[in-house]
Amino acid sequence: MAIENSGKGLQLHSLIKSSGELELSLVEVDVPEPGPDEVVIRVEASPINPSDLGLLLGPADLGAARAGGTKDRPVVTAPVPERFMRAVAARLDQSMPVGNEGAGVVIKAGSDAQHLMGKTVAALGGSMYAQYRLAKVAECLVLPEGTTPAEGASAFVNPLTALAMVETMRMEGHKALVHTAAASNLGQMLNKICLNEGVDLVNIVRRPEQAELLRGLGAKYIVDQSSPTFMSDLVEAVAETGATLAFDAIGGGRLAGQILTAMEQAANRNASSYSRYGSNTYKQVYIYGGLDTGPTELNRAFGFAWGVGGFLLTPFLGKIGPQRAQELRQKVADEIKTTFASHYTAEISLAEALNLDTIAAYNKKTTGEKYLINPNKGL
Amino acid sequence: MAIENSGKGLQLHSLIKSSGELELSLVEVDVPEPGPDEVVIRVEASPINPSDLGLLLGPADLGAARAGGTKDRPVVTAPVPERFMRAVAARLDQSMPVGNEGAGVVIKAGSDAQHLMGKTVAALGGSMYAQYRLAKVAECLVLPEGTTPAEGASAFVNPLTALAMVETMRMEGHKALVHTAAASNLGQMLNKICLNEGVDLVNIVRRPEQAELLRGLGAKYIVDQSSPTFMSDLVEAVAETGATLAFDAIGGGRLAGQILTAMEQAANRNASSYSRYGSNTYKQVYIYGGLDTGPTELNRAFGFAWGVGGFLLTPFLGKIGPQRAQELRQKVADEIKTTFASHYTAEISLAEALNLDTIAAYNKKTTGEKYLINPNKGL
Repeated sequence: MAIENSGKGLQLHSLIKSSGELELSLVEVDVPEPGPDEVVIRVEASPINPSDLGLLLGPADLGAARAGGTKDRPVVTAPVPERFMRAVAARLDQSMPVGNEGAGVVIKAGSDAQHLMGKTVAALGGSMYAQYRLAKVAECLVLPEGTTPAEGASAFVNPLTALAMVETMRMEGHKALVHTAAASNLGQMLNKICLNEGVDLVNIVRRPEQAELLRGLGAKYIVDQSSPTFMSDLVEAVAETGATLAFDAIGGGRLAGQILTAMEQAANRNASSYSRYGSNTYKQVYIYGGLDTGPTELNRAFGFAWGVGGFLLTPFLGKIGPQRAQELRQKVADEIKTTFASHYTAEISLAEALNLDTIAAYNKKTTGEKYLINPNKGL
Repeated sequence: MAIENSGKGLQLHSLIKSSGELELSLVEVDVPEPGPDEVVIRVEASPINPSDLGLLLGPADLGAARAGGTKDRPVVTAPVPERFMRAVAARLDQSMPVGNEGAGVVIKAGSDAQHLMGKTVAALGGSMYAQYRLAKVAECLVLPEGTTPAEGASAFVNPLTALAMVETMRMEGHKALVHTAAASNLGQMLNKICLNEGVDLVNIVRRPEQAELLRGLGAKYIVDQSSPTFMSDLVEAVAETGATLAFDAIGGGRLAGQILTAMEQAANRNASSYSRYGSNTYKQVYIYGGLDTGPTELNRAFGFAWGVGGFLLTPFLGKIGPQRAQELRQKVADEIKTTFASHYTAEISLAEALNLDTIAAYNKKTTGEKYLINPNKGL
């Protein structure tokens, strides 16, 4: 293992230069000695989530990307269009490590962390596209005996976000959910959670084969955006379930507004009299992703009792407090091979993650396709 | 006075027929006898607010309106485009009285309402475009001695909405406000309230002369949408005031998103490190009007800590409870000639309100222009 030999390891870095160029590279860094309450994880699995792509690729024009460097130390460069430079001003000329979450084996442990030595753990918090990662004991989620790093690689972002949706539904007084891009890894988890807990979930998908996939997983309410009867199907499903809360991974386009319109039409079915300001039923859409980076278009044909907002996991976990957050984490660890199982298109090395064709593939953010980086693969 | 002679009075009604036609007319109705806790108000002043136009005109195509009836009993008809018929399904074929608020003199009073006899009162709750209106004692706001009905006509919608904005700012933990269409009657009230209470207010206006008007009223932060430096001016004003809450009367177009973008850029000025998800500063825009009925376009260049939602006065008053709502109402009565003074373009009769040119004028919703109906004018 490299660390024993050299005391060094590779990290994938993303740099946007003030000259207007994105540079992706593998940087050799020292593996630090862990403090008393710290460990060093040999990372063996870290997913490329849509939420990683913002930091990794920024707003660069990847159609114009060029490959350079060597086979073992590839370097990718791509121009960043001038109009996006202001949006990335705060990160200019800083070489930034990437990778929100991952899993691996503890190979060094401080004096107060000896119980983790040799354990397979998952961690969240960035810099996971790296051979070795320093982590606090408190940041480590110990995976059940027999769990591989690949099985535990996605133990935070998707599982906790799916659980957060159901938590939010209860906290904010809604009784059922709508979810978009519902055939995603996250969507499949949410479907399982809702089936387990008896929560009605309206799954919005973009293609018939995704509807099939969810039907095979026992989903009851599935609405296909590509169907000519999409809007009336959506109104019907929302009316049947009473869903007044949606989580939207798409962001751009008319979908968030269509969901609010469907909720309003469902609410008005039960209205006893006409109100010029729309129904009194409060309707909320949280946008937690940006699969469509275009503008969100709201036609406001849904009265005044509505909200649209951004949703992020970290502030949510802050809001529910450390005890409840830990309960959710433990639930993920307990059900990592069932409810929270993830599927990957391919396992790639750090160098392969900088291959231009591979970048084009994971940057497509195709629902159901996800890449897993194994930073210690092929070394 | 008509009531003494005939026991009848005129009411302005709006009817959308299922055949797809809007009909505006004056309907002769009996003046009811008040119950013990009721009064009859002879309405002498009722404003045409933007919030009245939805019920009054619906989605009719007024470019194709026709005038009919007689001089004293005009009837206006206009086609409702087929695509809007579903949105008004709940009101079809019901002849509906109009007029949210107004003021007048109590001319009949029930046994428990004798103390209101002869008093000038304001009332809220619809059907105010009428010569006579029955009201509960609890619905009447007694105006201070020496207040005319015209002075008290707009004692609810604009004053309470302006007060609600400052209340909401405090309740939701913000420290300054942004307001759009800020030269409106409501905007001028909000400006006075904020000056009185030392709250920083960023006034967004659409034309230079509106900026002048507000400057003359002592406004400190004024940003003109028609200026080529609008966005940088807005960022500057938002940064200086620390405003993270906006109330938007426009609704359609890019403005709500521009305000969130300005708030985000102001927040990032103080950021110590780059966050790929945007700042942690929560930013909120409430849309309380629809001067632009087109879609709201959000480019989401403002991270994930944001919300956009509808805002309506009635649910807000419910939320703060009857005691605080009454305090706000009393504040309006006390300051009706100063903070909450309204200005009108013209005082018109019920028949004049159905004149095609007049309809075109008040339907333009030009900031600073407002019509006042005096249902007892010219009778």
